[in-house]
Amino acid sequence: MTSDALPRTRLFVDAPLAAGQPAPLTDTQTHHLRGVLRLEAGAGVRLFNGRDGEWLGRLGNFGRKDTGHAIADEQLRPPASAPDLWLCFAPVKKDAIDTVVEKGTELGAAVLQPAFTRFTDVQRVNLDRLRAHAVAAAEQCERLDVPEVRDPVGLDALLAGWPAGRILLVCAEAGEARPLAEVAAEAAGPAGLLIGPEGGFAPAELAALQRHEFVRPVGLGPRILRADTAAIAALAVWQSLAGDGRGRPPHRV
Amino acid sequence: MTSDALPRTRLFVDAPLAAGQPAPLTDTQTHHLRGVLRLEAGAGVRLFNGRDGEWLGRLGNFGRKDTGHAIADEQLRPPASAPDLWLCFAPVKKDAIDTVVEKGTELGAAVLQPAFTRFTDVQRVNLDRLRAHAVAAAEQCERLDVPEVRDPVGLDALLAGWPAGRILLVCAEAGEARPLAEVAAEAAGPAGLLIGPEGGFAPAELAALQRHEFVRPVGLGPRILRADTAAIAALAVWQSLAGDGRGRPPHRV
Repeated sequence: MTSDALPRTRLFVDAPLAAGQPAPLTDTQTHHLRGVLRLEAGAGVRLFNGRDGEWLGRLGNFGRKDTGHAIADEQLRPPASAPDLWLCFAPVKKDAIDTVVEKGTELGAAVLQPAFTRFTDVQRVNLDRLRAHAVAAAEQCERLDVPEVRDPVGLDALLAGWPAGRILLVCAEAGEARPLAEVAAEAAGPAGLLIGPEGGFAPAELAALQRHEFVRPVGLGPRILRADTAAIAALAVWQSLAGDGRGRPPHRV
Repeated sequence: MTSDALPRTRLFVDAPLAAGQPAPLTDTQTHHLRGVLRLEAGAGVRLFNGRDGEWLGRLGNFGRKDTGHAIADEQLRPPASAPDLWLCFAPVKKDAIDTVVEKGTELGAAVLQPAFTRFTDVQRVNLDRLRAHAVAAAEQCERLDVPEVRDPVGLDALLAGWPAGRILLVCAEAGEARPLAEVAAEAAGPAGLLIGPEGGFAPAELAALQRHEFVRPVGLGPRILRADTAAIAALAVWQSLAGDGRGRPPHRV
């Protein structure tokens, strides 16, 4: 089936997806479907939940005050594994952090991990807003899952809890670093990217990073990139060389 | 000299740069230096003009009503050639097109070429605003030049006037396409990237593109990217494999 024949509306749901099964929608989804898209019961939708692939379905009945639900009819795509890539980033101001979450989702990050560093200007992260952005971007970009937006941690805690067997590519403007493309081309297995704040990492942070055997300092070329640009660029390069960059979008002729 | 010792303020000027030569500043620059940054005559600045490398300099006298000027003292970096990469893109709405220009500048595009296509929603492009964004981004990112933001053209005219010897990598969500990383790894010489509008290219446009021997359809992976995301991702991948991605930022210890 081509994209022209498929419903444009894609919804992320929590419930298991199986033929004939109703999947509850959130109040926000119901409101958007009814109030903005003006859809009614029976309208075709596509559904995904991060576990059961993608399903063709339709909206069930929903009254004025009800939370809606959708009913799955037919599986369009089986579940598929996505690259195991974490994006760790120092929180930046509102527009830029929204950009990181939106484009990080489009570029297939599995985990979005805010990490506070010494020179991070931003003090708070609105996780609810970021999680809503991640869902919206996943619905738009044909992903089968939504990246996990984790609670912020300090850099020390991030490093102390870093899992065995996962490399951490630290995008560094200063100091010794190999080109990201070179490291990505050799890599296999789980990875994380770490993007510092606009002010860069503090010398003590760089020293701490370098003490960990899982850390690989990498460079993104000769220009100084804004933090959101660096996050997008690093994800794109990684996916194209070590991730799923050879894949093609589904449902396109 | 390290970045700590250098003035943070970098200014793009039109005039030739040579020791002791005054370089006029624009009214906008003067206003920003005086009114926002609160700098005075004698304050250290760095200067570049796209031809003479980067210079350490200082602000000259400027009165309330005068347009200011800066004086170059000492060359910090010689002129250097940048990758000959054009970014051609269907204009998108205001925030997204600003993102394309800002991040396209950071990622080293030499030319930014708006190109109208069949499914382009946006009818007008504010070139003055885009050119100001390009200058501001170039001043921030340590470039030695500012990308040329060209007047918009239609896709037909773009293709009809395409220069001999330059390949055009068309980012295509549908149809046959090789991974961008694969094409970039083989490439040498002048290149352009073409990013379509959110609605994609029309079938007739795709057919017209494929009739040109300089066109290479390329893919950016299995997810549908927003137009601004695609532009940033494609530039990052190209630079990392065929451009100057092995370079390191200047003035960093």
